[in-house]
Amino acid sequence: MSDIDSSFLKNTWYVCAWSYEIPAESLLARTITQRPLIFWRDQSGQVIALADRCCHRAAPLSKGRREGDRIRCMYHGLLFDATGKCVEIPSQNYIPATAKVRAFPIVERFNWVWIWMGEPDHADPSLIPDTHYLKDVNWRGTPGYMHYDANYLLVTDNLLDFSHLSYVHETTLGGSAKYAAIRPKITRLDRSIRVERWLLDDEPAPFLRNLKTWPGNVDRWNIYNVVLPGVLLMDSGSAPTGTGAPEGKRVDAAEFFGCQAVTPETSTTSHYFFQQSHGFALDNRDVTENLRQSVLAGFEEDRDIILAQQRVIHADPEGGMLAMRMDAALASFRTMLEKAINLEQSCVPKAMNQAVEI
Amino acid sequence: MSDIDSSFLKNTWYVCAWSYEIPAESLLARTITQRPLIFWRDQSGQVIALADRCCHRAAPLSKGRREGDRIRCMYHGLLFDATGKCVEIPSQNYIPATAKVRAFPIVERFNWVWIWMGEPDHADPSLIPDTHYLKDVNWRGTPGYMHYDANYLLVTDNLLDFSHLSYVHETTLGGSAKYAAIRPKITRLDRSIRVERWLLDDEPAPFLRNLKTWPGNVDRWNIYNVVLPGVLLMDSGSAPTGTGAPEGKRVDAAEFFGCQAVTPETSTTSHYFFQQSHGFALDNRDVTENLRQSVLAGFEEDRDIILAQQRVIHADPEGGMLAMRMDAALASFRTMLEKAINLEQSCVPKAMNQAVEI
Amino acid sequence: MSDIDSSFLKNTWYVCAWSYEIPAESLLARTITQRPLIFWRDQSGQVIALADRCCHRAAPLSKGRREGDRIRCMYHGLLFDATGKCVEIPSQNYIPATAKVRAFPIVERFNWVWIWMGEPDHADPSLIPDTHYLKDVNWRGTPGYMHYDANYLLVTDNLLDFSHLSYVHETTLGGSAKYAAIRPKITRLDRSIRVERWLLDDEPAPFLRNLKTWPGNVDRWNIYNVVLPGVLLMDSGSAPTGTGAPEGKRVDAAEFFGCQAVTPETSTTSHYFFQQSHGFALDNRDVTENLRQSVLAGFEEDRDIILAQQRVIHADPEGGMLAMRMDAALASFRTMLEKAINLEQSCVPKAMNQAVEI
Repeated sequence: MSDIDSSFLKNTWYVCAWSYEIPAESLLARTITQRPLIFWRDQSGQVIALADRCCHRAAPLSKGRREGDRIRCMYHGLLFDATGKCVEIPSQNYIPATAKVRAFPIVERFNWVWIWMGEPDHADPSLIPDTHYLKDVNWRGTPGYMHYDANYLLVTDNLLDFSHLSYVHETTLGGSAKYAAIRPKITRLDRSIRVERWLLDDEPAPFLRNLKTWPGNVDRWNIYNVVLPGVLLMDSGSAPTGTGAPEGKRVDAAEFFGCQAVTPETSTTSHYFFQQSHGFALDNRDVTENLRQSVLAGFEEDRDIILAQQRVIHADPEGGMLAMRMDAALASFRTMLEKAINLEQSCVPKAMNQAVEI
Repeated sequence: MSDIDSSFLKNTWYVCAWSYEIPAESLLARTITQRPLIFWRDQSGQVIALADRCCHRAAPLSKGRREGDRIRCMYHGLLFDATGKCVEIPSQNYIPATAKVRAFPIVERFNWVWIWMGEPDHADPSLIPDTHYLKDVNWRGTPGYMHYDANYLLVTDNLLDFSHLSYVHETTLGGSAKYAAIRPKITRLDRSIRVERWLLDDEPAPFLRNLKTWPGNVDRWNIYNVVLPGVLLMDSGSAPTGTGAPEGKRVDAAEFFGCQAVTPETSTTSHYFFQQSHGFALDNRDVTENLRQSVLAGFEEDRDIILAQQRVIHADPEGGMLAMRMDAALASFRTMLEKAINLEQSCVPKAMNQAVEI
Repeated sequence: MSDIDSSFLKNTWYVCAWSYEIPAESLLARTITQRPLIFWRDQSGQVIALADRCCHRAAPLSKGRREGDRIRCMYHGLLFDATGKCVEIPSQNYIPATAKVRAFPIVERFNWVWIWMGEPDHADPSLIPDTHYLKDVNWRGTPGYMHYDANYLLVTDNLLDFSHLSYVHETTLGGSAKYAAIRPKITRLDRSIRVERWLLDDEPAPFLRNLKTWPGNVDRWNIYNVVLPGVLLMDSGSAPTGTGAPEGKRVDAAEFFGCQAVTPETSTTSHYFFQQSHGFALDNRDVTENLRQSVLAGFEEDRDIILAQQRVIHADPEGGMLAMRMDAALASFRTMLEKAINLEQSCVPKAMNQAVEI
């Protein structure tokens, strides 16, 4: 097998799709960590993921024909079952054991489909972070997806340093320059970086004005984990000054829970899955819709600056960067990821087995 | 001279154009085996082929001006005759012997123009395969051309394994899965691979229904040579069961003769010249037109899957393939070609001189 | 710092913009010798040039916000002054001395903005060639700009060999083949190549027919310097035969002065700044407009053939060229430039300090 995905962490779960994207009758073709894949649901509803390349002459199976729970390559007619095993070769009875396409472990949970690109034996579902907020009666949100023409780490960098809110999102998610000036508390965990960021006694962020009103200033918080390889789980919100603060009771609060996953498509392109859910005004559709629009507007602002950054880096990869104090979390995350990749490349792959908490 | 065409067989005849494509007054610019060329007809009608690059400052001669049987570069005015020799340099009387562009041997025969990219001394016209079917009162067909964004060997692979008819051309040229299941007889000749494929007592192929009707089943045959570097010559047809079979008299048959040539443009693009002629109902224009449309529809199906295959291979060139029994002919052809290329690169070029029969 | 501009002469003045292109309120983003830059005017009107890359995380400053004479990166909020020094970092008080973006010496003179890409200490404004004709009451012309998808030396090659006028500009700037046949006088100076080209007693060039009429033939001259790295300064014109010739008094002449600058954008793209001024009929707007249109038409012809030449070279960089006598000036210029680049790369950079005359 070729080594096209050698720069990515393999023994880990990546979000590869929203549940609603995987069809029962046809196929979804999507590339994850440089590997073209096809996805479908079998008759029991289980999601199947196979390499999108016939083992015979490399024709893409995404141009193939579903035959029940099997897929036929429509170049020369090889038929594969859902495990990737070839079960029929026109013009010969003998089917060699090597006639197969690679199948990938899949877990579907809370509307997200997770894929394991490494050794199947190590694909332990208990390693999947808890994203039940995506599908929970106490939270309300809208599934989102964006495609990035940038390396996925430029996106996780962005998630790990919210000082950009004051500049990139000045009139949307961010607000005053005070937000950039505060120092987050950063904790290095086993497989994730935890960031806790408080802004006390300030005006509500611009986007909140469409969602909720308070008589005075608020305390704002963003408390989140970014878990390897690139999943953000975030408790955030605002509450009247004094009731929000770290030990506050969050009375009359606007609370949110964000689940975001950045998955490498190739070394220069990425998938971005996200849902920002609100835990108040659950039955107010205007709030849900306003939140959806605010998040999209903000994420377009992120993409605009990150794509510009990617172009600058691409034009001069040796041009260098200068670490600032605000880079502490992203630098830790990149170091953690690099170590994990080096580890799995230098020894027998072994999955990491710590649970992740937030 | 640079070595841009080093991966192609040079001492061989390639089809470079249909006769009607080469103008008398202007120029045709076309790249063959990575070499940009210009073509025109001199006043005697002879086709001329020169490198499309002025020897002076590399301006393309395709932007030049025809002056009788000569071509003037319209950057600095050098004038070349039909042998590629520079015969005028503005501002100097002395013309060095090195002032020339390369000319290529050309033979025009039965509506095809053949070019020799190797040593001119070895350009023996007797090595050109017999394609008189392209221009013969006993056959009727329509010239065709397609451009491929794929390496030419992916196209010859396709021609050498007709098991794809059942899948790629299920509703056009192909038909039932039985066609893929049969075993062709494959013969390795000196400069070509011969394939003989019979399907007895089956329904006529879908495309035939517009051309001819029979009361019952038919015997189908495809008997063809694929000659180095990529010329297919094919006797094919159908006749009522019993009269078609190998020793049959082909009574009430629909007989066809196909001439197809795949010529590398670059390492990732190709020219495809073809004509499928019918040997029955010669004066029935509907038959000619129906056949033309069926062939084009089928060849579009081929191109669609081959381009998809090329993209998969391009994304992961080391991804591998797995040889099946159905690959016997294409594997033999690729081995034969590789040997011929290695031979001409390792010693003084020497043309192969066996005749080709079908 | 990376070495992306290593193939260009650095310790020299390049024309980077027309004065009118640099805004007071916003920014101009433009790449010079492979380095993306931003340009603006400070409150005193002085042109500022900084690298278009924040030293922190490589976001482009061209997406930043002008704050008086400063520029703020709108990713994480770093603020830079006009010298490129970082003067504010959100969330930290300490600003390291390395927090800066590179600033480039700028001189604005006669409507052209000149930039020095090498060692600032060597940026001696007296090295800038005299282009006062661009802004002189005795001359009248129109600023012009073209972008080239070609290496800048293919453009300077073109300027150094006017034998192309007979072919590329046969019906515009050029005229009869006689022009290509004449031998220019070529002089190698310290930092430039001087070319003197006379065509005596011939018809006026086609474009002149819209500008001025004479009863008979004219003497034509083009006397110019091409100064490193790519600035053409040209005295040209036509006068009735006998009064034009080298010692003639140029009575009833059509005199022009051309200033042209070719500046590398990248190794495969270029900026081309030019103004052809007329020194007669100064108050006749039709003459100014007709001249502008003729020059543009001619320069489009140049670009068309040069882009075609670039594509041929790109397809086969090793394909070779053959030097002719007409290449004497361009060969000298290329040799001079190559020596200058080698010199500055092999020792401590030292600016060349000879004045240039025409």
